[in-house]
Amino acid sequence: MQLKIAVLPGDGIGPEIMKQALNITSAVCEKFGHTLTYKEAIVGACAIDATGDPYPAETHELCMQSDAVLFGAIGDPKYDNDPNAKVRPEQGLLRMRKQLGLYGNIRPVMTFPSLVHKSPLRADLVDGADFVCIRELTGGMYFGRPQGRSEDGNTAYDTCVYTREEIERVLHLAYKFAGQRRKKLTVVDKANVIATSRLWRQIAQEIAPQYPDIETDFLFVDNAAMRIIQWPKSFDVMVTENLFGDILTDEASVITGSLGLLPSASVGLHTSLFEPIHGSYPQATGKNIANPLAMILSAALMFEYGFNLMEEGALIRKAVNASLETGVVTEDIADGGKAYSTSDVGEWIERFVRG
Amino acid sequence: MQLKIAVLPGDGIGPEIMKQALNITSAVCEKFGHTLTYKEAIVGACAIDATGDPYPAETHELCMQSDAVLFGAIGDPKYDNDPNAKVRPEQGLLRMRKQLGLYGNIRPVMTFPSLVHKSPLRADLVDGADFVCIRELTGGMYFGRPQGRSEDGNTAYDTCVYTREEIERVLHLAYKFAGQRRKKLTVVDKANVIATSRLWRQIAQEIAPQYPDIETDFLFVDNAAMRIIQWPKSFDVMVTENLFGDILTDEASVITGSLGLLPSASVGLHTSLFEPIHGSYPQATGKNIANPLAMILSAALMFEYGFNLMEEGALIRKAVNASLETGVVTEDIADGGKAYSTSDVGEWIERFVRG
Ligand SMILES: CC(C)[C@H](C(=O)O)[C@@H](O)C(=O)O
Ligand SMILES: CC(C)[C@H](C(=O)O)[C@@H](O)C(=O)O
Repeated sequence: MQLKIAVLPGDGIGPEIMKQALNITSAVCEKFGHTLTYKEAIVGACAIDATGDPYPAETHELCMQSDAVLFGAIGDPKYDNDPNAKVRPEQGLLRMRKQLGLYGNIRPVMTFPSLVHKSPLRADLVDGADFVCIRELTGGMYFGRPQGRSEDGNTAYDTCVYTREEIERVLHLAYKFAGQRRKKLTVVDKANVIATSRLWRQIAQEIAPQYPDIETDFLFVDNAAMRIIQWPKSFDVMVTENLFGDILTDEASVITGSLGLLPSASVGLHTSLFEPIHGSYPQATGKNIANPLAMILSAALMFEYGFNLMEEGALIRKAVNASLETGVVTEDIADGGKAYSTSDVGEWIERFVRG
Repeated sequence: MQLKIAVLPGDGIGPEIMKQALNITSAVCEKFGHTLTYKEAIVGACAIDATGDPYPAETHELCMQSDAVLFGAIGDPKYDNDPNAKVRPEQGLLRMRKQLGLYGNIRPVMTFPSLVHKSPLRADLVDGADFVCIRELTGGMYFGRPQGRSEDGNTAYDTCVYTREEIERVLHLAYKFAGQRRKKLTVVDKANVIATSRLWRQIAQEIAPQYPDIETDFLFVDNAAMRIIQWPKSFDVMVTENLFGDILTDEASVITGSLGLLPSASVGLHTSLFEPIHGSYPQATGKNIANPLAMILSAALMFEYGFNLMEEGALIRKAVNASLETGVVTEDIADGGKAYSTSDVGEWIERFVRG
């Protein structure tokens, strides 16, 4: 198969972890006889520095021509402390999501047996938790207009908008996932207070009968925030709107104790994108200490969701598990044992894949 | 002192737990020589059933004429499963908040030594956690207009609005609390994406110099959702807007393992209101099994915040702690030991207060 991908390392530790993920992607392609072609492009703070634009037109063009995008992380502290800065790395991220039509962000929440003890939750509650959060990514308050200030600057407003089409497509995506898993979909909203949530709930109730083998239930967002902590094993697939998803997926990701290992996929109209959940981790930049596993597992998701190459993805997962079991891990999860560097871990996994 | 209070038991277990809290309030008043006068009124599902209105005008009048409101809980399953129902108990709650100008909801998050083992978090992380969440309660998306649907029904919209005045008063409230505690205020927003959050952050930055002894920091709401789980002891006072507060305060309340014990206070322009955090718990209604401690501790908050009667509040707290240590508790926290009824627990605490 021909794999044409765009590689966007981004800021901070992005380039270091991307290097490892790319090597492993190449190794997998060689092993299975696929042809990998890729091009790199800039995004985020480094793109602002180079061009003034966090998501330059050439980067967008490259993504549009690719079958999948591998994305590192963006963000630089120098842009963080001025909320009124004119150009910010995040704007590039949001524009990229919108222009690529990346409407569904998929985050598997899984625990790794060797890391359960690092979870902030009691082991009995979290061990074996295995669910998928699906976040709508191109609608809601992130993109609704009008947004801004009154003339005197003393009143601010944002708008949350959702259309039937936006809601339907991400619900269908969520049902598809639920159908391949334990057949339970939890729709999270705030239908007791806001109008957009009432539309979400109405449409979900309309669509549910099309998936008779899947159990649909509804949860208010405040209850969902509680249940993720109290009973994470009760979830199979959860779907929600953009802003609720921002909060809940981050909450869900920390209960596993393995934030540095969690990948995500964003399904789009024009292409799909794969990225680690963690950020650009500026403090670690250039030190060759960052954990590359979430980025490497993002490459696994790319094979699986992006190209439907399940065996290829499974091999990467197997290699990652082997590195964990052997203790070839970076300092964040070394737990007093030997801490390996980013490149050590990446090269170990690459050898496993080739071997 | 003259204590003139409005008593709103509401729905579900509200009346049962209110009865105990009222007896204890009376006992405290007798002991300290205060004159207590109170009147009851209806709110929520029971008010819809009786008058068609979840927050009738007479109830509002009574609250306006009172120095404090003791509130139980509202909600009934028969109104829950139809998001498009014309009249809902929640509307009464929101109208009550708005009409009474209850702009600041204060939720102390505390752990009880005897209950730490019930927390979903690892004991080492949560034991000793002690912070206060302050949620803006009368602004934001809960009340912003326009809110509704397009003519064809296929597009929905909500509006989030905040004015300088709304933000300033709740920030000052938060600073006041921080000043009486460990002098650290965390302002939670999403200033990297939404305009109302940028106004929050700007105003907080303007106000901060007025409180030079208090350390102000900022956290994005998604990070806050993570840090509440990962490092709850890092917080002292947290303040945020209405919808973020809805989600984060509920999240924060479950980490203690003592949801049935947590009270809250809402500070207002016209009066203040005190209520348990838990809901109306319909399954337990009329069974005399509900845990009355959150309601009783709400009465303690009423003495403290509502009337500045600190000794009176402290006596109730002491009595509640004694009941926990003695094991005079309801089944939800009995842990295999003897389970006492709602009235048993209330009467035990009342005797302690009188004795
Ligand atoms: C950086 C920020 C704009 C972004 C978001 O809120 O979507 C981030 O938190 C995320 O979840 O990817
Ligand atoms: C019932 C609902 C309208 C309410 C809210 O969202 O404010 C509740 O969740 C709360 O937190 O008091």
